[in-house]
Amino acid sequence: MKVTVVAGNPKPASRTLAAAHIIAHALTGREADDAVDVVELGAGLLGWGDPAVANAVATVRTSDLVIVASPTFKATYTGILKLFLDQFDTGTGLAGITAVPLMLGAGPAHALAPELLLKPVLVELGAICPTQGLYLSDKAYDQPGVTDAWMDRWAVTVLGSASASPDTTHLTRKGL
Amino acid sequence: MKVTVVAGNPKPASRTLAAAHIIAHALTGREADDAVDVVELGAGLLGWGDPAVANAVATVRTSDLVIVASPTFKATYTGILKLFLDQFDTGTGLAGITAVPLMLGAGPAHALAPELLLKPVLVELGAICPTQGLYLSDKAYDQPGVTDAWMDRWAVTVLGSASASPDTTHLTRKGL
Amino acid sequence: MKVTVVAGNPKPASRTLAAAHIIAHALTGREADDAVDVVELGAGLLGWGDPAVANAVATVRTSDLVIVASPTFKATYTGILKLFLDQFDTGTGLAGITAVPLMLGAGPAHALAPELLLKPVLVELGAICPTQGLYLSDKAYDQPGVTDAWMDRWAVTVLGSASASPDTTHLTRKGL
Amino acid sequence: MKVTVVAGNPKPASRTLAAAHIIAHALTGREADDAVDVVELGAGLLGWGDPAVANAVATVRTSDLVIVASPTFKATYTGILKLFLDQFDTGTGLAGITAVPLMLGAGPAHALAPELLLKPVLVELGAICPTQGLYLSDKAYDQPGVTDAWMDRWAVTVLGSASASPDTTHLTRKGL
Repeated sequence: MKVTVVAGNPKPASRTLAAAHIIAHALTGREADDAVDVVELGAGLLGWGDPAVANAVATVRTSDLVIVASPTFKATYTGILKLFLDQFDTGTGLAGITAVPLMLGAGPAHALAPELLLKPVLVELGAICPTQGLYLSDKAYDQPGVTDAWMDRWAVTVLGSASASPDTTHLTRKGL
Repeated sequence: MKVTVVAGNPKPASRTLAAAHIIAHALTGREADDAVDVVELGAGLLGWGDPAVANAVATVRTSDLVIVASPTFKATYTGILKLFLDQFDTGTGLAGITAVPLMLGAGPAHALAPELLLKPVLVELGAICPTQGLYLSDKAYDQPGVTDAWMDRWAVTVLGSASASPDTTHLTRKGL
Repeated sequence: MKVTVVAGNPKPASRTLAAAHIIAHALTGREADDAVDVVELGAGLLGWGDPAVANAVATVRTSDLVIVASPTFKATYTGILKLFLDQFDTGTGLAGITAVPLMLGAGPAHALAPELLLKPVLVELGAICPTQGLYLSDKAYDQPGVTDAWMDRWAVTVLGSASASPDTTHLTRKGL
Repeated sequence: MKVTVVAGNPKPASRTLAAAHIIAHALTGREADDAVDVVELGAGLLGWGDPAVANAVATVRTSDLVIVASPTFKATYTGILKLFLDQFDTGTGLAGITAVPLMLGAGPAHALAPELLLKPVLVELGAICPTQGLYLSDKAYDQPGVTDAWMDRWAVTVLGSASASPDTTHLTRKGL
């Protein structure tokens, strides 16, 4: 199972990227295989055919599980993330790939955004999004326990969707 | 695998209900095991504790796959369907159950409603909704081919989500 | 200017209704002219043609400003509120009427719901919704100051929309 | 009344921009005062502080009425439009400005996108969005009559919102 994290933050090496790595690790018990820090693609995102952008798209398209992460800008995902997602083909760009919509925000007021706004974009690209969208505080995303409720409800579902023979031995919390 | 259809139309025995049965059959190759025609529950929907409502909730909760269908009223699902969904517990009411959001409308203008509006309610109840929401014309929902594109993309995903050992032998279209 | 409050809570005389009255008073400086506590309409909501329901619809339709309020059930408005809104004609049912979408919830996680979910239903009925949807804590909706930021940004806009010659003398906070 | 059109299409001089101009003219009876064709801002959109971007933001912020237009990419607005909107301050960036969310698409399936997806971003920036979001076919946006129903319902409302003393003499269709 190939696991990739995507972060659409205007700053490189952001908390958004760190949070995506944390979720990937929590879900799979190991480091992600690859990462796309969208901002590093630069002005190539503004057109079509840029080799680095094409390479990043291919990285995502050959994954089994993708954590797609964004900070909350104007109560929804960032323009820079959407710019990257616009590079994928409608319906087939993420077909067969399990994706988790993840957003970070300064406060809880925008907690519905990953479910109502980010997930439908991923699904439109063909992604399988079997979980509820996940929203984390950008100050507490790395604190112990903040994702326990979401993990308890959705981790086995994600792994079952992303892999024909999922390894869930690292999921040791009660009820999993 | 227990399959149930739910229809939230103010009229009993509606096209909404018929469409839900068609989708259930297309997905599984057989008739649904059970059906909840919400309007038949009557005024018991307006409170809590009605035995017929509780029985309908239990029917859904013991299912593996549920087709949740609504006509389009005011660009979204009906009040009567939401009244029934309000009877389920948040987070756990549909936990572990695979659900397909289905809406019928007079024209294509509201085609985003099952994905953007109905699916999030089901997910909030804990349902696994691995497919894109499905929107069908209320005049053509029973015509050959109208669901082929959706079935081609999502049928195997639905069955894999709803069953540990899905039978997909009835899915004979190219590419499945 | 006729002002009406609508509350779609399964319990009569709810905090939802109280909050709608508070907002109406804060906006206009006086009591609302009329109120529809939807649950009191009972089983007549499940069909069409009930006289009490028709009377409640007429009350709303003859208003200039309507506060439409719901508790948060399953991350969105209630089924009982939608049941009432389904009684209005699409496009014209609330045409020319200024409406404020208001939701109460136990915590801040669903704060986007009035803007993303309730407002579009009102607009589909023809209502003018010039403000951002308002979300209040169901424990603190009546505390001093909780609506100040929203009032500062939107009160004059609401009144200007609802009245050709709005009286804003009661709006005394800085910046209004 | 200063009127500005904004188009967020990856191609310059797009049908999106043309449609925004048509709507501005239909609403006001004259040409827009200014236009922002977002793609012309180029790589400056990817950071903060670019002078051309700042100038475009100032153009919008000093307007009374803004038509904000996007083609439909992945069932919602484009990344490039959101990149531009991310340059505005939350809550105040469009405060006091009347905005019309406009989207063009190849077919009617995404007609809910301007209301459900684009409008909330504008409102989060503080804009007054008193109309229903407008969705037009990218093949027929310039055909006679395609906006009549929307204009009949919303033109007077837009002008009343954008101007203290609106001139509506150019609105000659029946019912206005």
